[in-house]
Amino acid sequence: MRPELVRIAPRTGTAFTMKAGQTLTVIDPEGEQVADLLCFNANDVAEVLSSGRTLDYASRIYLTTGDPLYSNRSNVMLEIVEDVVGRHDFLLTPCSKDTFRIIYGDTDPHQGCFGNLAQALAPYDIKPDAIPVAFNCFMNVPIDGTTGAISVLPPLSKPGDYMKFRARMDLIVGLTACSALQSNNGRLKLIECRVE
Amino acid sequence: MRPELVRIAPRTGTAFTMKAGQTLTVIDPEGEQVADLLCFNANDVAEVLSSGRTLDYASRIYLTTGDPLYSNRSNVMLEIVEDVVGRHDFLLTPCSKDTFRIIYGDTDPHQGCFGNLAQALAPYDIKPDAIPVAFNCFMNVPIDGTTGAISVLPPLSKPGDYMKFRARMDLIVGLTACSALQSNNGRLKLIECRVE
Repeated sequence: MRPELVRIAPRTGTAFTMKAGQTLTVIDPEGEQVADLLCFNANDVAEVLSSGRTLDYASRIYLTTGDPLYSNRSNVMLEIVEDVVGRHDFLLTPCSKDTFRIIYGDTDPHQGCFGNLAQALAPYDIKPDAIPVAFNCFMNVPIDGTTGAISVLPPLSKPGDYMKFRARMDLIVGLTACSALQSNNGRLKLIECRVE
Repeated sequence: MRPELVRIAPRTGTAFTMKAGQTLTVIDPEGEQVADLLCFNANDVAEVLSSGRTLDYASRIYLTTGDPLYSNRSNVMLEIVEDVVGRHDFLLTPCSKDTFRIIYGDTDPHQGCFGNLAQALAPYDIKPDAIPVAFNCFMNVPIDGTTGAISVLPPLSKPGDYMKFRARMDLIVGLTACSALQSNNGRLKLIECRVE
């Protein structure tokens, strides 16, 4: 049986469980579209993905094939096993009403990836306050090494590009098709994923 | 009455409360010593300092005078009102037993800033799992803009250098004299602070 391909509509999110050893493929079918990825220990949701631990242990802000993603308890949650793009972000929190208000000046802001993740994760008893920095697949965030300036540029992903993660523990995963225009080169597209 | 100067012994940490409007001065008396700073909303400890929100809104990884530090709810918790050093880190989590085990290969690791913060914050009902990326005062972490490589170099702080924060809400604050040799140019020193 072919594992099901899940389509995440533009500006929405979803959540699902994975067993240790399963793989998750995140696909960008049209190209230049970011997907925010979060995960929690399925047996104790106080254990969550940690950018700070992961970047410290990697000694690199750009992660790719072979890199483990650590939890706040320094356990490996996911490992990147395949990555055809090679540029993702792990510095910035999911876009939210406040992002759109503070950065874009929107008066009636969309709930963003943060709101989409909060909604999708609520049935798993995960509170919005527990949403940390996400691993932002395909998000292209160069840093100026001298000034520290952060830029948000169009993703380097082309149509059909993907990356694959292996779960190293039983997980609850949240995943979005990112809602911020700047992150997605001005056009909000879908994301596909598959667990197998 | 002169506000009390608190001494934080090498490789230890402390916690205290601040009222909105008060200032916190963090002093590096001997120079080249990092202090990990965390804060929680005193009225609801689920609201906590967020590196991801702060860096996103600043569009810079290096923060200094005038920059607000945001919570996971996008509220301003602290504002940097004076900074004579100009280089601090907001990417890496507090050093921990696991840091010393994974990065330094220690077999009997010190509890690090993470353990010190967990201990100091426990009386305020803050759980270790709730400790996020800290604002690491005086920590000098350049990023290679091309490769994304993270370096940990000696702090730029000279003896007596300091930075001052203003609280924008009632806070519980955790603060350490950092325990990691590499972050402090190989010598673990004290930190001083003052709330007024």
